[in-house]
Amino acid sequence: MMNQSTPIINHYVALVKVSSFENCLNSVEKIANSIATDLNLNIVKKASHMFEPQGITLIYVLSQSHLMVHTWPELGVIHVDLITCSYRSREKFEKCLKHALNGHAIDSIQIKSIEFDKLDYND
Amino acid sequence: MMNQSTPIINHYVALVKVSSFENCLNSVEKIANSIATDLNLNIVKKASHMFEPQGITLIYVLSQSHLMVHTWPELGVIHVDLITCSYRSREKFEKCLKHALNGHAIDSIQIKSIEFDKLDYND
Repeated sequence: MMNQSTPIINHYVALVKVSSFENCLNSVEKIANSIATDLNLNIVKKASHMFEPQGITLIYVLSQSHLMVHTWPELGVIHVDLITCSYRSREKFEKCLKHALNGHAIDSIQIKSIEFDKLDYND
Repeated sequence: MMNQSTPIINHYVALVKVSSFENCLNSVEKIANSIATDLNLNIVKKASHMFEPQGITLIYVLSQSHLMVHTWPELGVIHVDLITCSYRSREKFEKCLKHALNGHAIDSIQIKSIEFDKLDYND
């Protein structure tokens, strides 16, 4: 029997432009923590890297997959990559992202939803 | 003056179906290391998580951004998320991915390139 299914891979990528953003890990963690809390995500591991002269990558391994935030403080650019193996709507993701960025003057937000064709399995 | 530019965010996502894949961190690391070597990526940090009863997430923080591999061994599914802040062609990524999976019987490969509109900056 041919079965059409794929593991749930709920993948959103966001590119946000804010008027200014400090080169501070704590600020990036606040954003990631807010998103994780609002979307009910469980953080199991954290890794971060501070680039020279600036820029931060913060990665949370989730029990549902991963949340990654990259920042370019010199440009006011924040890039978010969220993969979960359970469904969250795009509207909910956008709402949580805006909530996480509360206090920052947002110039623009672009969000992409990444979807693949279903895979075939032979049972 | 209005300047149209965006940080380089070279983003590929791949969904690969193989006939079988073992639930083994070493196998996932071999794939990620092969991709990193072939694409000349510099690994600065690693994080991994083994899910119960199976499934592995491996994340490399790169000096160029991140490489993430999720696996669903029970389905033979491998999901790769690569972001770099310098350009790699889609053809090169696909070639390196196939090289990394050398030895696995590949049923299908889907690759997406994630691109955003340019951002506006006021100088």
